[in-house]
Amino acid sequence: MGFSFEVDRTAEGGGRRGRLRLPHGVVETPVFMPVGTAASVKAVPQSLLEEVGAGGKGTQIILANTYHLYLRPGHELVRRMGGVHRFMSWERPMLTDSGGFQVFSLSKLRKISPEGVEFRSHLDGSKHFFSPEHSMDVQIALGADIAMVFDECVETPATWERTRESMGLTHAWAQRSKDHFELHKDRVPWFSERQEQTQSLFGIVQGGMYADLRKESAERLVEMDLPGYAIGGLAVGEPREVTREMIARTLEHLPKDKPRYVMGVGYPDEIEEYARMGVDMMDCVLPTRAGRHGLLFTSQGRLNIKKKEYAEDQGPIDATCGCIVCRRYTRAYLRHLFASGEPLSAVLNSVHNIAFYLDTMERVRGDLERGAS
Amino acid sequence: MGFSFEVDRTAEGGGRRGRLRLPHGVVETPVFMPVGTAASVKAVPQSLLEEVGAGGKGTQIILANTYHLYLRPGHELVRRMGGVHRFMSWERPMLTDSGGFQVFSLSKLRKISPEGVEFRSHLDGSKHFFSPEHSMDVQIALGADIAMVFDECVETPATWERTRESMGLTHAWAQRSKDHFELHKDRVPWFSERQEQTQSLFGIVQGGMYADLRKESAERLVEMDLPGYAIGGLAVGEPREVTREMIARTLEHLPKDKPRYVMGVGYPDEIEEYARMGVDMMDCVLPTRAGRHGLLFTSQGRLNIKKKEYAEDQGPIDATCGCIVCRRYTRAYLRHLFASGEPLSAVLNSVHNIAFYLDTMERVRGDLERGAS
Repeated sequence: MGFSFEVDRTAEGGGRRGRLRLPHGVVETPVFMPVGTAASVKAVPQSLLEEVGAGGKGTQIILANTYHLYLRPGHELVRRMGGVHRFMSWERPMLTDSGGFQVFSLSKLRKISPEGVEFRSHLDGSKHFFSPEHSMDVQIALGADIAMVFDECVETPATWERTRESMGLTHAWAQRSKDHFELHKDRVPWFSERQEQTQSLFGIVQGGMYADLRKESAERLVEMDLPGYAIGGLAVGEPREVTREMIARTLEHLPKDKPRYVMGVGYPDEIEEYARMGVDMMDCVLPTRAGRHGLLFTSQGRLNIKKKEYAEDQGPIDATCGCIVCRRYTRAYLRHLFASGEPLSAVLNSVHNIAFYLDTMERVRGDLERGAS
Repeated sequence: MGFSFEVDRTAEGGGRRGRLRLPHGVVETPVFMPVGTAASVKAVPQSLLEEVGAGGKGTQIILANTYHLYLRPGHELVRRMGGVHRFMSWERPMLTDSGGFQVFSLSKLRKISPEGVEFRSHLDGSKHFFSPEHSMDVQIALGADIAMVFDECVETPATWERTRESMGLTHAWAQRSKDHFELHKDRVPWFSERQEQTQSLFGIVQGGMYADLRKESAERLVEMDLPGYAIGGLAVGEPREVTREMIARTLEHLPKDKPRYVMGVGYPDEIEEYARMGVDMMDCVLPTRAGRHGLLFTSQGRLNIKKKEYAEDQGPIDATCGCIVCRRYTRAYLRHLFASGEPLSAVLNSVHNIAFYLDTMERVRGDLERGAS
């Protein structure tokens, strides 16, 4: 209960126009999800997230990081505050990752066993242990609409043997995630008040840069009959053609009636390309992280606002963009804010970049609606 | 042209309900002016400044710092961009200080002569020279509605003799500021497009913590017949009773039909007290600076959001506050943002504090309107 996915139309290239129905609302797909790491999309007030991009419809769904919220303020605190939606005052859909990626990329002194991962916090060095069961408990306490199975993210590059071994662990952990989730999913903070609806648990296909392993991983996960499938372990340094190839080769083995989510991608042209290939969901820190570093996305390509050439440029970031930043502020002013280290710089740059990503997906949805690929 | 001040009613305590008419709009007084140091009220988007506080009427007038804008991006650049209003997309009234205070508090290796001040930039150590004439040229290029004479800010504490000497320099510089301003005020960037209206130049009363010098300074400046008078050199470390006493003893000698502006104050109870004594304008970095440090102002006093006791507090910052932050976010969430170093923390804390300051003045204006002191 609390989950459905429908596809209205599939274009020739494989792109699908559909929608996800979740306890906190409907998400038109394909969708880009801004990342709200520690229950905040960095530097952007929730009211602006709701307004900006996609013709004023704003952000449909955001992601929050289980690892960050587990460490600070703690998932039990978030549960007592009514769950992450209420905690951060965001009543639209949300998704939490499993914590796996951050455990493998941010934390220190990891010790992996079949049971789970022992690691030290990147904040204070304190010792913690994450297992599939624990990741589920944390994600249920946070209470996003969609939770993710706990997976191992293999280092890159990795040999076929190493990748297959890691993938095996991921599959075992996916099954344990599912088993634990099914037993405890009624503990989500808003279970009673939302007519006993609860979260949905998505699987994650691994298999590194090996098409045969991707196929095997997809098939193994599909056997678990989860409501949606992510493709993980991509955009970790490999060439873009490889990312694209791995996505294409994995999509072939995923069911057409379930949402497919590529984690952690990408540049605007990438999210557009993958959406047209049949990916329904994507997330990335890029619009906000790039924004904080002065990198802006436009219909004419990337623009580095710190450049001297913009010092007296009275035009907007992107003349074809209708976002509140482009309607109000000049490149000259935005360059000044960045050069002066003004905190408003991160706010405005992030708002524009998010708007640009959401507008991109709105345009792709329009094309797919008309059957154009 | 482009300036008038009217007083509707004066309460028994001396507080005045009035309004300033400036080229960029009308300002209801007494008024608090948030500080937009480098053409940005730190961390707050202009659209929120326009909406927040005073029952949704928002910020009436902001201040920008001549010293900061002179160094970066440079006043000539701002002039070419159409002046500071257009540069930052703020079409409501603005005021620039003279640069004097920052030259004396921020810059390095100052060398003061009757001609002016040589100093080194706090940013890159480069050498600069500010004279009254140069401050006027810079302020005219920036083009705020109100400019301030260039004054010397004496160190504190200072002897009577040292203070009197410094005050003498300030008076000579005020006259030179006025002479230069009168000659060049038609060079303001928006002179033609605003029917040949221009800026107004306010004087600054100095005299340290000596009532006799404050009186002498006020009288000398009043002879110069400027459209408004500021009281400078206060809130620089002296006890609050002294600040209050100096304001009271200076107000006695300032004309009742001109606006009186106390620079750089203060806490909410101070701005309320001074407004009720007859001060018409005040500015301070406190709402934004305190906000960035997690200090929030409320109807129940100050609140330090970093405290553990707010970790699970589901109430708003201030239950009597109607600002967008208090309507949407809990103390628990705001504490989490601060503790996690999230950039949104500075945005939301600053927005609330500005709203609290503006609401305070709105309430005082209401009282004065009814003749209550």
